Amino acid sequence: MNYQIDFEPVGRRVQVQQGSTLLQAARDAGVGLAAICGGAGTCGRCRVQVRSGQVSPPTSAELDVLDADDLAEGYRLACQVAVYDNLKVHIPPASLTTPQRLQVEGRELPVSPAPPVSAHTVRLDPPSLTDVRSDEMRLRAALPFPDVSVDVAVLRQMPPIMRRHDWVATVGLRRPGGVVSIHPPGTALLGLAVDLGTTKIAAYLVDLASGQTLTVAGRMNPQIAYGEDVMARISYAMASPAQAEELQRVVSQTLNDLLRDLCAQAGREPEDVVEAVVVGNTAMHHLFVGLPVRQLGLAPYVAAVSEALDVKARDVGLEIAAGGYVHLLPNIAGFVGADHVAMLLATGIYKADHVVIGLDIGTNTEVALRTGERLLTCSTASGPAFEGAHIRDGMRAAAGAIERVWLSDDRLEYQTIEGAPPVGLCGSGILDAIAALRRAGILDKRGMLTDHPRVRRGQNGPECVIVEAAETGHGRDLVLTRQDVGEIQLAKGAMRAGMKILLREAGLSEDDVDEVVIAGAFGTYIDVRSAVDIGMFPPLPERRFRQVGNAAGIGAKMALVSTEHRALAVEVAHSAEYVELTNIPAFQEEFARAMLLP
Amino acid sequence: MNYQIDFEPVGRRVQVQQGSTLLQAARDAGVGLAAICGGAGTCGRCRVQVRSGQVSPPTSAELDVLDADDLAEGYRLACQVAVYDNLKVHIPPASLTTPQRLQVEGRELPVSPAPPVSAHTVRLDPPSLTDVRSDEMRLRAALPFPDVSVDVAVLRQMPPIMRRHDWVATVGLRRPGGVVSIHPPGTALLGLAVDLGTTKIAAYLVDLASGQTLTVAGRMNPQIAYGEDVMARISYAMASPAQAEELQRVVSQTLNDLLRDLCAQAGREPEDVVEAVVVGNTAMHHLFVGLPVRQLGLAPYVAAVSEALDVKARDVGLEIAAGGYVHLLPNIAGFVGADHVAMLLATGIYKADHVVIGLDIGTNTEVALRTGERLLTCSTASGPAFEGAHIRDGMRAAAGAIERVWLSDDRLEYQTIEGAPPVGLCGSGILDAIAALRRAGILDKRGMLTDHPRVRRGQNGPECVIVEAAETGHGRDLVLTRQDVGEIQLAKGAMRAGMKILLREAGLSEDDVDEVVIAGAFGTYIDVRSAVDIGMFPPLPERRFRQVGNAAGIGAKMALVSTEHRALAVEVAHSAEYVELTNIPAFQEEFARAMLLP
Repeated sequence: MNYQIDFEPVGRRVQVQQGSTLLQAARDAGVGLAAICGGAGTCGRCRVQVRSGQVSPPTSAELDVLDADDLAEGYRLACQVAVYDNLKVHIPPASLTTPQRLQVEGRELPVSPAPPVSAHTVRLDPPSLTDVRSDEMRLRAALPFPDVSVDVAVLRQMPPIMRRHDWVATVGLRRPGGVVSIHPPGTALLGLAVDLGTTKIAAYLVDLASGQTLTVAGRMNPQIAYGEDVMARISYAMASPAQAEELQRVVSQTLNDLLRDLCAQAGREPEDVVEAVVVGNTAMHHLFVGLPVRQLGLAPYVAAVSEALDVKARDVGLEIAAGGYVHLLPNIAGFVGADHVAMLLATGIYKADHVVIGLDIGTNTEVALRTGERLLTCSTASGPAFEGAHIRDGMRAAAGAIERVWLSDDRLEYQTIEGAPPVGLCGSGILDAIAALRRAGILDKRGMLTDHPRVRRGQNGPECVIVEAAETGHGRDLVLTRQDVGEIQLAKGAMRAGMKILLREAGLSEDDVDEVVIAGAFGTYIDVRSAVDIGMFPPLPERRFRQVGNAAGIGAKMALVSTEHRALAVEVAHSAEYVELTNIPAFQEEFARAMLLP
Repeated sequence: MNYQIDFEPVGRRVQVQQGSTLLQAARDAGVGLAAICGGAGTCGRCRVQVRSGQVSPPTSAELDVLDADDLAEGYRLACQVAVYDNLKVHIPPASLTTPQRLQVEGRELPVSPAPPVSAHTVRLDPPSLTDVRSDEMRLRAALPFPDVSVDVAVLRQMPPIMRRHDWVATVGLRRPGGVVSIHPPGTALLGLAVDLGTTKIAAYLVDLASGQTLTVAGRMNPQIAYGEDVMARISYAMASPAQAEELQRVVSQTLNDLLRDLCAQAGREPEDVVEAVVVGNTAMHHLFVGLPVRQLGLAPYVAAVSEALDVKARDVGLEIAAGGYVHLLPNIAGFVGADHVAMLLATGIYKADHVVIGLDIGTNTEVALRTGERLLTCSTASGPAFEGAHIRDGMRAAAGAIERVWLSDDRLEYQTIEGAPPVGLCGSGILDAIAALRRAGILDKRGMLTDHPRVRRGQNGPECVIVEAAETGHGRDLVLTRQDVGEIQLAKGAMRAGMKILLREAGLSEDDVDEVVIAGAFGTYIDVRSAVDIGMFPPLPERRFRQVGNAAGIGAKMALVSTEHRALAVEVAHSAEYVELTNIPAFQEEFARAMLLP
């Protein structure tokens, strides 16, 4: 007998024979479940939540790994569950292999589309020798509001379009802004949402009327060539106006490349895109808009602009419809930008009535604390270590990257992306490795490598071999050095100290936290247990953590299709209380303490 | 005993001895009065109007030239008037030598300045570690209306300007448009008015608060290289978008050159210029704004845009303050443009309660008829002959150009610009020459050269020698050919026919015309009597003609400094009834008749 298994949120369905395991079902469905132990029930990585249908009772392997609350909520190990019913199964991001995680993001938004630009079909009277009114006057006569402003780019495009299409056209009418675009009749208007990260850029092509995401694409931020972190790029831009313009130009060029790719995939034209929303941290926001960043790089680190901003796309070199606008969500402070606002909007943290910490982990990590009433934010410098940079054998999440490390009877087990021979460690693998080494006693509290057969003296001090040369893809040992551990200690220490300071400002402690929402690509990859083990996150039950993927991108899409959510974003930014950590004397002490490995 | 003579509108004052002639006084004052006969009282060219003070009684020479009405209004010949009192003397443009005519234009405008952009001084609180608001929020707090929009260019310039000037700055606040510019504190804001002619460009740098013109400059329209007349340029632009862009670019480059020159002369910077007004015919308007012109070049000759237009200067490549606007006055029809609206505004024709014809003589000539109630307009193609082009020995009004020709006892007398040896004829000289040759019977009614000792057969048919080689600056005969006369006949015939058709449409005749207002550089140079003699203008008393110089430029300046006059310009354009001459069957007949020389 066959049963039907629905995997969510990846949206895969499969028919399996009675008695198959859920792990087998996932493999049949092409869902990449983490399963280091190969289905032996020992690694505990293939954790899933059965949301409907009857399943076999928990095995002893599961009882070792899952507590009573977990089981009550339907959490099981996929390798241990035998199928005896039609099931609906939810897979937490942490249980997916790395490359599959970013596919989790929903293509449907939890908002009713009410975009600022709407399509209007206009039918004009053609001119004649006895009616020589201008094209513009004909258009005004056909519009619902004749006094509306018409962008000069539309005036330029209108005469040929009207004559080519027998005096019928679709115009994009924006409030505020007037007529921003003109198209052949019947054109469905598109929007572009962009999450402009320090390292990565994610872009979404969206149908404005339905709110549906048509295509998605990502690129590295080309500004990396001018400096890995925000401060390095601010320094570069400060050197001369020409250098600042260069940073602006390379980003807008990359956005135009993405735009063309997205449109080509969807069989559409960049001219059909009439509105864009771009979110990024304050420095990325400023560099993209062409705003000066000197004052962002020097105390007291003030933004040139923090309010929401509408700029003509052509004024920032973005090649959507010539009269279209780019909307930029508000920034909260010099280092808490519009991307964080977008994340708070997308996750609903801004209106939560319980205690929530929101983390946007990236080269800078923004921390928000919603107390149920107040919304506090701060920013900590985490650097690029989480992306695998500044780590001896670090690499980005690509084939052959070690994404999971696991201690099994004192042996280090690992899993690579696509199962390829290991060639480096990506961020989640590094966290796992540190957690495992600490558990094995190879790392001490201070992050020092202890005397152990795996530990040796390398070129730059002590290092621990993770995978020996014989097993690697390039024939060299893969190691974790004392310095690598130190980079992670600095990054995670700053993050944890930021959380503690915000809680203290609100008169709360870590135990009061009902939920920790982790956003950003890296935050989606990591194993929350490892992050708790190394003291990056507070020691809360695993189910209080929620990994939400690129919430900033989703927030950008919500703002793209909903003017109501633009207004909400403004409220979020205004209501947020920014805490400048360098003003808080206790921060240094918390930071020092948080660098320790528990 | 000495008396004081004030010459207006040139604004010169001089002390002269009792008994001196007014011609002598004018020479002493550096005022270039036309006086072909050298003060003998025979040429009648040094006509002036004595507006206050006692003078000698009219001489017999004056009684030959001036009628009773003229004398009653104070008109005299300057060479015949002896000074016995302090005098105020008005010099009509026609009595000035050519190069001095354009200097006549008033530097003060007959409007109270109320420009759309006003200067506001803002004093901001500097940021500190406890006040990290963005620069933009500080600015909004210091503005009278915090909700006003702030141009992105201002946001880009604000941080360095504020920090360099201790948080005090002057901003340009525009209604509508918000904050369009930011400057060091105390900067006086400037405006740029441009009359964008098919052949010539005149530009004026104006202090916006006082309305005073600071500097004036002119250039040839660089589009001449792509076609002398409007139709040739439309054809060039129609060939490809790249060619249309080229026409736009060369004009904006020339305007930027003019802008830099004007600012350098005034000791100011282009960034201080926060608003521009550009007027031109509909084709020049469209090519400058980058609007398509194909539909202007094909029947029914429809404008893309006819309403008044505000565009960001950066969107048309004009390098004034980065956030500044260019305002374009409304067009009336495909061939009656914003320059004609500006002329109607500057001269007050639009509101006259008597019958006035307004002429804007150029490569195209626009004709307006104000009946006291209605305002009718049409356009006629006059071609570049009036500028001296397409005329065998034609030249522009420069040193050595024959600007006046006069028949004295069957001898042709002439006067050149700056008294240099003659090298060609400029427009006014050509008209004079045709009038003189017709009077001498050398030209017949149809414009044919008769059998006469001065007439010979040249390379391209009959020609009449105006100055023999021995007297010229280049040692060649200066001639007027049958073809030259034909060019002028076509141009003046179209103009006169246009006037007649408008009068007929209004149920009036030429005798009903109380005033003929002649605008444009060429219209200022010409001798009205010659123009009447050749049938270009109706045979009305000379005092009914008023030569007003570059009224379009003055109208542009009025619109630059007065929002009220922008609104008036819209009313003028809306109230004007455009008459398409090609729709009027009687036009061809009138045209044929008007080509004859009376």
